[in-house]
Amino acid sequence: MATDQAQSDASEADTYDQFEERVRRISNVGNAAGILQWDQEVVMPDEGTPARAQQLSTLSSISHELLTADETGELLADLEGETTASSREDGETASTDLDEEETAVVRETRRQYDRETSVPQDLVEEISATASNAHPKWKQARAEDDFDHFAPTLEKLVDLKREYANHIDPDADPYAVLFADYEPYIDLETAERVLERLRENLVPLIDAIDDSDAELTTDAFAGQFDDDDQEALARDVLDSLGYDWDRGRLDTAPHPFSSGTQFDARVTTRFEEDDLLGSITSTIHEFGHANYTLGLPDEGYGTPLGEARDLSVHESQSRLWENHVGRSRPFWEHFLPIARERFPELEDVTPDEAYESANQVYDDNLIRVEADELTYHLHIVIRFEIERDLIRGDLEVSEVPEVWNDKYEEYLGVRPETDAEGCLQDIHWSHGDFGYFSTYSLGSVLAAQLYTAADADLGEFDDQIREGEFDELNGWLRENIHQHGKRYVTPDLIENATGEGLTADYFLEYVESKYGDLYDLDGY
Amino acid sequence: MATDQAQSDASEADTYDQFEERVRRISNVGNAAGILQWDQEVVMPDEGTPARAQQLSTLSSISHELLTADETGELLADLEGETTASSREDGETASTDLDEEETAVVRETRRQYDRETSVPQDLVEEISATASNAHPKWKQARAEDDFDHFAPTLEKLVDLKREYANHIDPDADPYAVLFADYEPYIDLETAERVLERLRENLVPLIDAIDDSDAELTTDAFAGQFDDDDQEALARDVLDSLGYDWDRGRLDTAPHPFSSGTQFDARVTTRFEEDDLLGSITSTIHEFGHANYTLGLPDEGYGTPLGEARDLSVHESQSRLWENHVGRSRPFWEHFLPIARERFPELEDVTPDEAYESANQVYDDNLIRVEADELTYHLHIVIRFEIERDLIRGDLEVSEVPEVWNDKYEEYLGVRPETDAEGCLQDIHWSHGDFGYFSTYSLGSVLAAQLYTAADADLGEFDDQIREGEFDELNGWLRENIHQHGKRYVTPDLIENATGEGLTADYFLEYVESKYGDLYDLDGY
Repeated sequence: MATDQAQSDASEADTYDQFEERVRRISNVGNAAGILQWDQEVVMPDEGTPARAQQLSTLSSISHELLTADETGELLADLEGETTASSREDGETASTDLDEEETAVVRETRRQYDRETSVPQDLVEEISATASNAHPKWKQARAEDDFDHFAPTLEKLVDLKREYANHIDPDADPYAVLFADYEPYIDLETAERVLERLRENLVPLIDAIDDSDAELTTDAFAGQFDDDDQEALARDVLDSLGYDWDRGRLDTAPHPFSSGTQFDARVTTRFEEDDLLGSITSTIHEFGHANYTLGLPDEGYGTPLGEARDLSVHESQSRLWENHVGRSRPFWEHFLPIARERFPELEDVTPDEAYESANQVYDDNLIRVEADELTYHLHIVIRFEIERDLIRGDLEVSEVPEVWNDKYEEYLGVRPETDAEGCLQDIHWSHGDFGYFSTYSLGSVLAAQLYTAADADLGEFDDQIREGEFDELNGWLRENIHQHGKRYVTPDLIENATGEGLTADYFLEYVESKYGDLYDLDGY
Repeated sequence: MATDQAQSDASEADTYDQFEERVRRISNVGNAAGILQWDQEVVMPDEGTPARAQQLSTLSSISHELLTADETGELLADLEGETTASSREDGETASTDLDEEETAVVRETRRQYDRETSVPQDLVEEISATASNAHPKWKQARAEDDFDHFAPTLEKLVDLKREYANHIDPDADPYAVLFADYEPYIDLETAERVLERLRENLVPLIDAIDDSDAELTTDAFAGQFDDDDQEALARDVLDSLGYDWDRGRLDTAPHPFSSGTQFDARVTTRFEEDDLLGSITSTIHEFGHANYTLGLPDEGYGTPLGEARDLSVHESQSRLWENHVGRSRPFWEHFLPIARERFPELEDVTPDEAYESANQVYDDNLIRVEADELTYHLHIVIRFEIERDLIRGDLEVSEVPEVWNDKYEEYLGVRPETDAEGCLQDIHWSHGDFGYFSTYSLGSVLAAQLYTAADADLGEFDDQIREGEFDELNGWLRENIHQHGKRYVTPDLIENATGEGLTADYFLEYVESKYGDLYDLDGY
């Protein structure tokens, strides 16, 4: 018996090692692709595209084949069998069981494996090819304000993505299946409940702001600001927040993003001469993403234990730093003197004026990417409701422009005059991406929940922010979120960190208090 | 019969397509690794190494497994069988035969396949691990001028590389086998003959220079030159030579290199405040490499048809531009006015003075990387002779310092006082690289041969260089070298381009004439 047990131990260790080796290989191929993508966005010469497309396609195929290979399925089954058999016989956790970390690696890989093996490769390729063709059509449709030019392709993408969802789970709501591609462990019902609460509470709040007589300073950052000086200031921002330059770098990209691993998490931003505030807040946002990545455990590199949880948690980190820190009054008390070193023309701007300018609500804005902290979520809600109904078959593509405009009128009180500034404004559907928009709002909601919990655990942060001290806040995030990687499923991660499940309560408290004060609102 | 033939055609096409798909995949993985290496040298944050090492190791394993898989061997055998069978039956080339391009792809892949499958993976990994440990030992040995600290590791590397060579061909001279890793299609005998001629002719030429009373201007570029201005000037150099910025970029790296593909061939250089000439010549050298890569045919991307021939041909391109163009008198007539725009302090320098300063011979220099166009090759000859004898077992590691110093005294008339500036000066042996040093000299020799042939085909280039017109020269190189990728084996490529096999004649004519004039030498 002892020998059998020893053999069983050895065999399971072998199986797990083989499995982990495969997981690491897949992860390294993905991280290599990440570097190629960063390179493409940031430094690649214009005409490098044909070769880069082939390199990325090859890495993607290799990764897919490694994941969906029979060996992966057999290793998963063996490891899951071991755990179950051993639990059943002993009635308790035996030493041969997978430990908590190994179990998490198996769980995450199983999920990916099941999804990728259930969709025929032909369909994946058809979606990819259709999306490639959709992109120029969308671009032309938007340029010419001609929705009909894009409609047939959009229809095809909706059909294909519904078919894709049916392969993964024919019994489930197809929109819920697509949502789970971006946010695997939060129920669609939870997301819907959160968005519903945002809509119910933000619409009246924005109406109240619209009716308010308060006159905020909106031009604290008006002017023309040199690109090089903006870049120097962006580096000051990152220095000030504690960015680890030995594991990161700052570059410019047309669409700012951050990417990388815990050893090398890079930030990009962009500079426009007339938008100094935009480059500062965008840099802080991307810092939040990169800072999460840098907080993942070194020893987890190559497995899900060293990878970030999904889109909502990632976005909670960027929004926490951008909004709860970077748009706070104490932050501007801290940062304005630094900004004045680069831009003496800010000499006469007060922290209050900077704070007000950074928190102006644009209640007649039609464009999501130009939205403020409040109206942003209504843009999200509208797209969420429309794409959900499209995928479910409750809405025809031809009805989208009308429904879009009606919803803007209803929720935001403005009606787009063209589809170009209406339902054609965003690129995402042309990529075949349906289901992830809501993770932006979930991220904001979670940011507020985490910030409130941290604030309660550690005492008021305002004084620390005013002093430019971010170590305690970051330490709390490291301990409660970053270091866990994908060890816990998202609801457990949130519950462990904050003592409760995901809720919009703290976000609504935060915005009602903040904007109630800013706009002197009655009843807020 | 017609049906059989059609089926045979279809089946061969299928086989070739499958084969090419596999070749493309291997190539794309290699090119992806190339981007990761560029990134590591140029932009990666300091602490990114642990993750990068794993990513590169994974890509290298995947590439090795794809190449050495049974399927690759079977496809190669099928394709080689088809060609042979069909040739035998018909007595002439049938339509089912592989065409010339396909045959070249099969030939190059077969060569790689045979080499990689013949060496046990354990040995490859042992060499890699030993080299990793050797590097810090070499570094310390050099810093402390303590050859004995490095000797045992060097001995182990020599043994392992000899074993490696024996796996590939137990009947061949092991040094010839190692040499073929870098230069597969030029015989070691040819290389030896060339190096022998260089030694025989350069030793007396350098002696004559040593005895010469000529007083060359050596300080045309003396002074301190700002890094940013040097970078601007490096861009001027590349502009002037016709570098395609849409498919390239310039960055700095501690050890300048160029890398990439025909869609994206990047140059790096470095700037030292007191060495303006060095940054110019190094930039021109790297331009030559990148310009070769950019001349490879777009449609060949992903197979050997779109890849550069090996190290000697690559080096011929960098040396041709660096030496035959960049160190010529007409080049300085063209370029000095451009340089003066960036550095007004060059106002009084004449083209003759610039030319003389760019061609000064350092007959008492001990360090290869600081050598001139003549003494450089004696550094190469010495290392070549020593490493050849080491691998063949004709020399013990313990004898290296003594033999090294003796040879320096004999060939160059200087004796190193320390091993740090003697046999420990270069990094290469610590990497386990034995056999490629001579390709630098072969490259110089081939550069002269190609330049002479181009000059004969197209008329005197001097006037064009004086005008900054490089299109015709580049067109000749595109047509005769670049566009062929690996279609021809190296001796055929050289013969097609120049009408004869590789010979040191033109290099010796070139240096004897050039330095005979510069130093007023009798008999030259």
